[in-house]
Amino acid sequence: MYNKKIKVFDCTIRDGGLINKWKFSDKTVRDVLFSVRDAGVDYMEIGYRASEKMFSPGEFGAWRFTKDEKLREIIGDEDLKNLKLGVMVDIGRVEAEDFAPVDESPLSFVRVATYLKDIHKAIKLANIIAEKGYETFINIMAISTVNDHDLAKGLQQVEAETSVTAVSIVDSNGALYPLDTKALVEIYKSNLKTKDIGIHAHNNQQLGFANTITAIGDGIGFADATIQGIGRGAGNCPLELLIGWLKNPKYDIEPILARIQTTFVELQKEIEWGALPAYMVTGILNEHPRTAIALRASDEKNNVADFYKQLTTPECFN
Amino acid sequence: MYNKKIKVFDCTIRDGGLINKWKFSDKTVRDVLFSVRDAGVDYMEIGYRASEKMFSPGEFGAWRFTKDEKLREIIGDEDLKNLKLGVMVDIGRVEAEDFAPVDESPLSFVRVATYLKDIHKAIKLANIIAEKGYETFINIMAISTVNDHDLAKGLQQVEAETSVTAVSIVDSNGALYPLDTKALVEIYKSNLKTKDIGIHAHNNQQLGFANTITAIGDGIGFADATIQGIGRGAGNCPLELLIGWLKNPKYDIEPILARIQTTFVELQKEIEWGALPAYMVTGILNEHPRTAIALRASDEKNNVADFYKQLTTPECFN
Repeated sequence: MYNKKIKVFDCTIRDGGLINKWKFSDKTVRDVLFSVRDAGVDYMEIGYRASEKMFSPGEFGAWRFTKDEKLREIIGDEDLKNLKLGVMVDIGRVEAEDFAPVDESPLSFVRVATYLKDIHKAIKLANIIAEKGYETFINIMAISTVNDHDLAKGLQQVEAETSVTAVSIVDSNGALYPLDTKALVEIYKSNLKTKDIGIHAHNNQQLGFANTITAIGDGIGFADATIQGIGRGAGNCPLELLIGWLKNPKYDIEPILARIQTTFVELQKEIEWGALPAYMVTGILNEHPRTAIALRASDEKNNVADFYKQLTTPECFN
Repeated sequence: MYNKKIKVFDCTIRDGGLINKWKFSDKTVRDVLFSVRDAGVDYMEIGYRASEKMFSPGEFGAWRFTKDEKLREIIGDEDLKNLKLGVMVDIGRVEAEDFAPVDESPLSFVRVATYLKDIHKAIKLANIIAEKGYETFINIMAISTVNDHDLAKGLQQVEAETSVTAVSIVDSNGALYPLDTKALVEIYKSNLKTKDIGIHAHNNQQLGFANTITAIGDGIGFADATIQGIGRGAGNCPLELLIGWLKNPKYDIEPILARIQTTFVELQKEIEWGALPAYMVTGILNEHPRTAIALRASDEKNNVADFYKQLTTPECFN
């Protein structure tokens, strides 16, 4: 028996690029793309799309912008088979003119990332993009920091005002325990009558995979993952663990293991991610990992006890 | 609200010693011991006890034998407060004469590790040790490889014939998913009317912590963990994650973080453990990690795709 409903959503390049400003070689992106296709993954979010008016192309690699022509160059003559390609967008960092009509683009979907407080902006942006023919999704970030009634209202608004396929639970802080995940899935379910649910779990407390399979067990339809869990800070649910667990014959773990063997072993020497103690600390404290990322970039990178003390010593506000 | 029943069981030196033949410096053992005490941990399994007739003291460090006099030397004048000290024993590797009566020993408990097929030997050994006054436990290893009715019979025998405090679920292969853990806890519960239940979870699939808190949520009383998850192969449930989650004021994460900062950062440069892809592969395949350990010691240490193929290519038995 296996879960037939689940769609696997790869974010390797998009989320991994947060570590290296999306400066992956074309070969790496091509290798990851075709491995993800060969593994039978359903969706691949291959980068962000952002306006070049707002970000300097000199400072960032191609996958900060993910232009249609760059994608065509990467894909070449290859058949993507059942793999759908898409991008993530942030509110205020992209404009309607940055998207061609869907039939002129190699992309088929767009995910809008938002904080709950900006959900109305996310709805507006998702609707503009949907009008161009793209399948749309909304990701609600920092979900461990919102209260239940605000979340319910936001979800109801998405339900009423958009045509998104799914709304994702995004554990930006890596603070959720499996029981929290179950509670969130219930809130999403009861407020999203015609939309599906996704999860994007961070690995600060070594629970990225556990939270993902907990949510799948509770009936969600979309699960995010990245090869070897690559992603900013502690990283994400590892794609290979997810495929190993799904036991669905449409997925194949071997192309992903091959990619780990030939690409990721080297990549890990160049850039750092994973469930290091500093990221665990921000996860336990339900804080954004930015302080831990700064610690890891400093001379005191391993001073996790000092770091914990800094974060937990009460400040005087008088 | 927090779990008041749970007892935390540290295995840092005992399980970590499987990597380096228990060749920890006295300073490291002392530092770990007092950090574990200061963290409010309830039980510490500080080593194996084994007969010097069977293992050469020249080849192994002190914690393969964990002699009472060595322990007294390590403890010195320190007060262990509420921390109970004990050892693990393997069937056939220790004799009754290796244990003094409990009131002549710094140890207060002994855990017997066994495969289910040898449960009658484990019962006999546990009873011999209990007669000397020690609190006893039985750990059933490789629990992902036994069938439910054999397990039920074995547990019934332990229930009827011993005075052990608890019997532990030991996921030697790191193959259990949280739903498997839940099912095992139910089997243990229904067959152990007067004994408690423990868990010792391996981290091959990054589920050591998740399986541990799943079992605690289902009512078990004893949870094993090690500092930074140290242990053979993929290692164990990390003690700092467990304490961070328990939210019980009797535990303090800070002494453990201090130990990571000052001892484990260096230790990780000398010895390897953790949820590496090779260990994930044996976990997914529900195999003992010995092949993955051999791979990691070889020149092909990172060839995880080749390794997977070797393990999954059907052999010809004709």
